[in-house]
Amino acid sequence: MNSSAAAAGCLMIVLMHRQATTEQVEAVVAAIAKHGLKPLNLPGGDHTAIGIASAIPPDLREGLANQLAAMSGVVNVVHVSRPYKLASREFHQASTVVRVGNVEIGGTACVVIAGPCAVESREQIFATAKAVQAAGAKMLRGGAYKPRTSPYSFQGLHEEGLALLREVRQVLGIPTVTEVIDPHDVEEVARHADMLQIGARNMQNFPLLIAAGRSGHPVLLKRGPAATLDELLFAAEYILHHGNNNVVLCERGVHPLDRTYTRNTLDLSAVPVLKEITHLPVIVDPSHGVGHARYVPAMCRAALAAGADGLIIEVHPSPQSALSDGQQSLTPEQFSLVMQDLARVANAVGRCLA
Amino acid sequence: MNSSAAAAGCLMIVLMHRQATTEQVEAVVAAIAKHGLKPLNLPGGDHTAIGIASAIPPDLREGLANQLAAMSGVVNVVHVSRPYKLASREFHQASTVVRVGNVEIGGTACVVIAGPCAVESREQIFATAKAVQAAGAKMLRGGAYKPRTSPYSFQGLHEEGLALLREVRQVLGIPTVTEVIDPHDVEEVARHADMLQIGARNMQNFPLLIAAGRSGHPVLLKRGPAATLDELLFAAEYILHHGNNNVVLCERGVHPLDRTYTRNTLDLSAVPVLKEITHLPVIVDPSHGVGHARYVPAMCRAALAAGADGLIIEVHPSPQSALSDGQQSLTPEQFSLVMQDLARVANAVGRCLA
Amino acid sequence: MNSSAAAAGCLMIVLMHRQATTEQVEAVVAAIAKHGLKPLNLPGGDHTAIGIASAIPPDLREGLANQLAAMSGVVNVVHVSRPYKLASREFHQASTVVRVGNVEIGGTACVVIAGPCAVESREQIFATAKAVQAAGAKMLRGGAYKPRTSPYSFQGLHEEGLALLREVRQVLGIPTVTEVIDPHDVEEVARHADMLQIGARNMQNFPLLIAAGRSGHPVLLKRGPAATLDELLFAAEYILHHGNNNVVLCERGVHPLDRTYTRNTLDLSAVPVLKEITHLPVIVDPSHGVGHARYVPAMCRAALAAGADGLIIEVHPSPQSALSDGQQSLTPEQFSLVMQDLARVANAVGRCLA
Amino acid sequence: MNSSAAAAGCLMIVLMHRQATTEQVEAVVAAIAKHGLKPLNLPGGDHTAIGIASAIPPDLREGLANQLAAMSGVVNVVHVSRPYKLASREFHQASTVVRVGNVEIGGTACVVIAGPCAVESREQIFATAKAVQAAGAKMLRGGAYKPRTSPYSFQGLHEEGLALLREVRQVLGIPTVTEVIDPHDVEEVARHADMLQIGARNMQNFPLLIAAGRSGHPVLLKRGPAATLDELLFAAEYILHHGNNNVVLCERGVHPLDRTYTRNTLDLSAVPVLKEITHLPVIVDPSHGVGHARYVPAMCRAALAAGADGLIIEVHPSPQSALSDGQQSLTPEQFSLVMQDLARVANAVGRCLA
Repeated sequence: MNSSAAAAGCLMIVLMHRQATTEQVEAVVAAIAKHGLKPLNLPGGDHTAIGIASAIPPDLREGLANQLAAMSGVVNVVHVSRPYKLASREFHQASTVVRVGNVEIGGTACVVIAGPCAVESREQIFATAKAVQAAGAKMLRGGAYKPRTSPYSFQGLHEEGLALLREVRQVLGIPTVTEVIDPHDVEEVARHADMLQIGARNMQNFPLLIAAGRSGHPVLLKRGPAATLDELLFAAEYILHHGNNNVVLCERGVHPLDRTYTRNTLDLSAVPVLKEITHLPVIVDPSHGVGHARYVPAMCRAALAAGADGLIIEVHPSPQSALSDGQQSLTPEQFSLVMQDLARVANAVGRCLA
Repeated sequence: MNSSAAAAGCLMIVLMHRQATTEQVEAVVAAIAKHGLKPLNLPGGDHTAIGIASAIPPDLREGLANQLAAMSGVVNVVHVSRPYKLASREFHQASTVVRVGNVEIGGTACVVIAGPCAVESREQIFATAKAVQAAGAKMLRGGAYKPRTSPYSFQGLHEEGLALLREVRQVLGIPTVTEVIDPHDVEEVARHADMLQIGARNMQNFPLLIAAGRSGHPVLLKRGPAATLDELLFAAEYILHHGNNNVVLCERGVHPLDRTYTRNTLDLSAVPVLKEITHLPVIVDPSHGVGHARYVPAMCRAALAAGADGLIIEVHPSPQSALSDGQQSLTPEQFSLVMQDLARVANAVGRCLA
Repeated sequence: MNSSAAAAGCLMIVLMHRQATTEQVEAVVAAIAKHGLKPLNLPGGDHTAIGIASAIPPDLREGLANQLAAMSGVVNVVHVSRPYKLASREFHQASTVVRVGNVEIGGTACVVIAGPCAVESREQIFATAKAVQAAGAKMLRGGAYKPRTSPYSFQGLHEEGLALLREVRQVLGIPTVTEVIDPHDVEEVARHADMLQIGARNMQNFPLLIAAGRSGHPVLLKRGPAATLDELLFAAEYILHHGNNNVVLCERGVHPLDRTYTRNTLDLSAVPVLKEITHLPVIVDPSHGVGHARYVPAMCRAALAAGADGLIIEVHPSPQSALSDGQQSLTPEQFSLVMQDLARVANAVGRCLA
Repeated sequence: MNSSAAAAGCLMIVLMHRQATTEQVEAVVAAIAKHGLKPLNLPGGDHTAIGIASAIPPDLREGLANQLAAMSGVVNVVHVSRPYKLASREFHQASTVVRVGNVEIGGTACVVIAGPCAVESREQIFATAKAVQAAGAKMLRGGAYKPRTSPYSFQGLHEEGLALLREVRQVLGIPTVTEVIDPHDVEEVARHADMLQIGARNMQNFPLLIAAGRSGHPVLLKRGPAATLDELLFAAEYILHHGNNNVVLCERGVHPLDRTYTRNTLDLSAVPVLKEITHLPVIVDPSHGVGHARYVPAMCRAALAAGADGLIIEVHPSPQSALSDGQQSLTPEQFSLVMQDLARVANAVGRCLA
C-alpha cells in the first residue's frame, strides 16, 4: 500500500438542524476533536455547519461519518472530496499504460479486443481469432466461465475453454482476456489467459477483487449496471491496494429506463469523466451496452470519439448458432467493416488504432 | 410571499482542485466577497475549500453557484441546505391542514379519495360516487381532461365532465378533485371542482403551477416519475410563492427498474421523509403506483402504515369496460373490503379514517 | 390525419394463467370477437395464450388491452408492435428533412445549433450569435421563457427576449429556435422564432403538443428525462397527428444513476435506435446531457459519430456571469475549437457539417 | 432437479419486420421446426408474427431466442411466460415455510430478525442479542464477513465473528443469520450460523449461489439494487436447482432516483408481487432500504402491512460507535418501541408476530 496515499485526507462538512441546540453543536465539535481532528465552525445562513479542517485518514473516514450522522441535531454529513487515493488522478497525474503481452492499453493508440461471448469449440475460437486478428483486433476475448442469469443456460467450457484460449495464443500470438468468477480460480485463469476480466455482476465481489489484486495479473474491471463511478473506482482501489496497478476500466452500460430497444444504456459520458478523475485506462463494451448487433457499429464509433482507450466487441462466426449472446455479436464481415470506420474516427480525434 | 422566508439564506461550499493555484483560490474568494457575502477558507486535507458564511438570498443562490462552478480551479459547488423556504418545515414547524369543502387533509384522520380514472357518463360517475361514499370515501376523483400517452386514446369529456362533477357534488355533497392540464383552464376547473389536481407529467409545468398558485384553490400536486423530493418541493414552492398555501403532495410511483409486474415503483419512504422536511400533507396513489388492481389493497395498507395522510384510489363500477386505466381500478366491492382493512391499519398506527 | 395510418393495426397477445379455466379462456375469446377481431388460440407450453389476428384500430388498442387485462384468468397483455403510425419508419421509409429558414435538418450535412441558455440582453445575444455564426453554427438557440426548478431563479425576458431573437435573425440572417412553455404562447413565439422548442419537462404537456401541431411551425421536441423512446415517439405523434410533419427529435440525457459528475446520462444509443424506428431527424444536446462544459466537447464528437443529424450546444460569451446554466456553457473560443473537431468527425463518418 | 419442472415449457413470439420477405418468414419457421417445435403463423395487422406452440425445454429457451433474434427480418423475440420453474408458484401452489432452528419463516406469524450490521466484540453481540430477544426478535443478525465499498472500511472479524455468533446461539438459544461472500467459506459459515445470507451485491455471484444450494442450509437471498424480480427469482432458482428449497427472499431497496434523503428506494410493491408469483417466503430489510434510523420504524410498519413474512432490522447498542452502518441502526430502546407498533400492525392485517 502506498503510504503517502494512505496518509492523505478528505474534507467533511456536518450540517446541523436549524433548531439544533448549543449542546448538540458542542457535542459534535467534541466528537471531532476527540479523534485529533480540528473542527471548524461555519456560521452559515439558517444552519450551523461544522467543517473538519485536518486530513481525515482513509480508515477513519467512514466510521467518523457514521458516528457524526447518528448524533442528535445532525441533518447530514457531506463528503467534499474523493476517498480513493490510489485510483485518483489527483495523486497520480500521469496516465497509466497497462501492458498485456505485447499490447499497450492507455497510450495514444486505441486497442480493439474482439471475440465470441463464450469459447464453444476449437473450430469456433480459432476461426474467430484468425478473423478478428486479420481485421486488426489486438486481443482476443472469449469466456470459459460464463455467469448466466438462468441456471439452465450454457455456463461455459470451464478448464477446456481455458486450455483452448492458451492454445490460440500460442499458435496465433494474440493475447487473450477471459472472465474469472470465483476467487479460487484466479491463479488458474491467470496461467492460461493474459488478462483477467471481472464482470459487471462481480464488480463488488470483494474476495474476487482481492484475489485479482494479489495476482498482479492485468485486470479488465467492468462497471456494474447500477454502479456509480465512485463505486467503480473504489472497486479498482481494492485491486490497486492489494498491489496490482494493471487495471483497465470498462464501461458496459447501466440499467436502462426500459429494455424495449437496448439491453442497457451505454453511458459514454463516463469516458471523459473517468479520463479526468482517474489515471487508469478506460475502454468501452458496446456489445453488452446495447445488446443488439445492429446498433453496435454506431456505438463503437461514438465510444472512440468520446475518448475511449479501446473497445471490446463480441464477434462470432455464426451469431445465429452462438451458445450465448448471439443477438449482440457481429459477424467477422461486419467487424471488418467496423474496423475501417474506427480507423477513420480514431484519426479524426488525433489517435490511431493499435 | 413570506418575506422572512425570502430573506433566509443557505450554505454553500466551493471545493477547489488539489492543484488549484493561489490565484484561483483568491479569485473565488473575491467573487464571493463582491456579492457582499463572507467567504471562509476551509483548509481541508488535500483540497482547499471555501465556505460562504453569510445568508445567501434565494434569488442569488443559483446564479452564484453557476458563476463559481464555471471558475477555473473549482471542482464542485456543494449546497448544504434546502433552498425552498415556504414548503420547508424548518421555517414552518406546525403541520398544515388543507381544507377541501368539509374535508380536512393533514389532520389526525386519514382521508380516502376514490373514483374512476375518467368521468365517462352521468350513470358511471353517479354510480361510482354513491358506492365509494357508502364505503367511506370522503372525496371523489374523476378526470375530465385526461393526459394520455397516445393521441388515439380517450382524452376525457372536457367541459361535459366538469359539469357532471359539479352535479355529483351538488346532489351527493361529496367534494371532488379533478386534473387540470392547461393553465388557461384553471379558473374554469376551479369553478366546477373543489380541488385541482396537477398530474405527475405536469409537475414542472410552471405556467400551470403559477396559475394554480394564483387561484388560491386547493391543489393536489403529484410527484413526477423521475422527480427527486427536492424537485417536488420546489414545484410546491411555486404554488406557495404565488400565494396559495393549500397544497397536498402525492406520491404516485417513480420510474421502475422494469415494468414486468408493476407500472411504477411506489416510493413509500417518501412519506416519512416528506413528513419530516415539509409541513404540507402527504397522500399516496397506489393505483398508479402499481398499475394492477390486485396489488392495490396491499399498497393502500402499507401507505397508511408508513404515515400517509390519505390515499387516492381508482374505483370503477366495471373495470373491464373503463375507457382508461381499467387494469388498475378496483370494483366497488373490492374497494369496500379495502376500506375495512384500512380502518384497522389506521387504528394500529394511532390514527383513524376520516 | 393520415387515414391509411389510422387504419393500420397492431398485434396483441393475451397470456392466461396456467390454472385458467376453460370458461375464462372462452370469455377472453368472446370479448375479442365482440369487437369484430379474430382471436387465435395459441396452445403454448404451460399456458394458454390468445393472439389477435386482425388489425386492431389505434383508437381501440388501449381500451381493448385494458379490458382484457382486467378479465379474470389473464396474466398479462403483450403488445407486439408499435402503435405510433405517423412517426414510425415502418409506414414512411424515407427520412424526413425538416426545413428551418434556409437550414435543412435530417439531410447528409449535420447541423449545429448554438447559443446561450437564455437571452439576457441585446449585447449578449448579438455577441453570441455573431461568434457562433462565425464558427460555423447554422442556427441560434436562446430562451425567452425559461422553465426553472426554483421560483427564485431567473425566468427569462419573455416578450423582450422574443423581440431580440427576431432582431438577431433580421440583422444576421441566422434562424432561431426558442422554447415555448404555454400553449397560448405558441402563436406569438412562432411569429418571432423560426423553430419552437418543446423542452424535456414538457414532453408530455399535451395541450402544448397539440398547439405546436396546429401551428405547422418547425418543432424541436426534447426527450423527457424518464421517457422511453416509445413515449417520445407518441409525443411526436401528437404533433404529426395535428397536421405538422416538421418535427426534429432531441436526445438530451435521461435521469442518471447519480449526479456526482454529470447532470444526466446522455443516452447516445437512442440515436441509432431512433434512426431505425422513425423517419424524423434526431439531434443531441450534450450541454444538458452532461451539465459541465468540460465534458461537452467529447460528447459532441461522440454524438456525431453515433449518427446524429445535428447538435444543440450552449455557448455564452461569459459563462461565469450567465443568468442560467453557466456551468455547462462553452465560451466562443471553446466552441470554435469544438467545431473544428466536429468537421473531422463528421467527415470520418461520411457526412459533413452544414 | 425436479424433472417435471425441467420438462415444463414456455411460450415465445417472434415478431417479423413489416417489410420481411416470405423467405425470411419461412426461414424462421424452419428454424423453429428444426428443434422439433411447432411454429404457428400469426397473421397480425401490419406484421407477421410466429408463435411457438409446443413446450420449449428450459435449456433450449435462451439459445433459441438468441438464434431467432439474430435472423434477418426479425424485429423482436417476446417471451410470454416465466422460465424459472422451481421458484414459481405456478408449479408449486402451496407457500413454502422455511425452518431455521426453531423458527418458521413463511407461516402466519411474522418473524423479526434483528442485530448489528457487524459483529464487533463479545460484549457488543451479547448485549444486542439479549436486547433484541427481550423485545421479541426471533433471530439474530450480525456480519462476520462485511462486503464494503471501500477497502479502507472495517471488513469484519471473520472467523472470530463466526465463533461469537455460535457462542451467542449456544448461550441464548437464538438462531443466527450471517453473510457469506466467498463460495469456499459456505461450509464453514454453515457450521457456525443457522442461516446463510447472500447479500445484494452477490445476488448474481453464481458460484456462491451454487455452493449455497449444495449446502442445503437455509439461505436468506437479498435482491440486488438493480435486479428485476425475474432476475431475483432466477438467482433463487440456482439455489433450488442445486437441491436446496430453504430459500427466503429479501427486498432491501433498489437504486434510488437520488440519495439526498434515502440510501435506496425500498420497493414494497415487490412484496405482493413476489407473494403472487413465487411460493418462497419474502421478508424486508428497511434498514438498508432507507439508510437512516429515523425512517426505519415507518418502513417496518409499512412492510408488514404490505404482507411481508418478516423483517430484518439493524440494532446496535451504541449506533454512534458502530464500526459500520451506525447511521441506519436503531438503539435497543427504539427497537423495543417498534416491536410494539409491529404487533399492532400485524394484528390489523390478520397476522401476528412470531
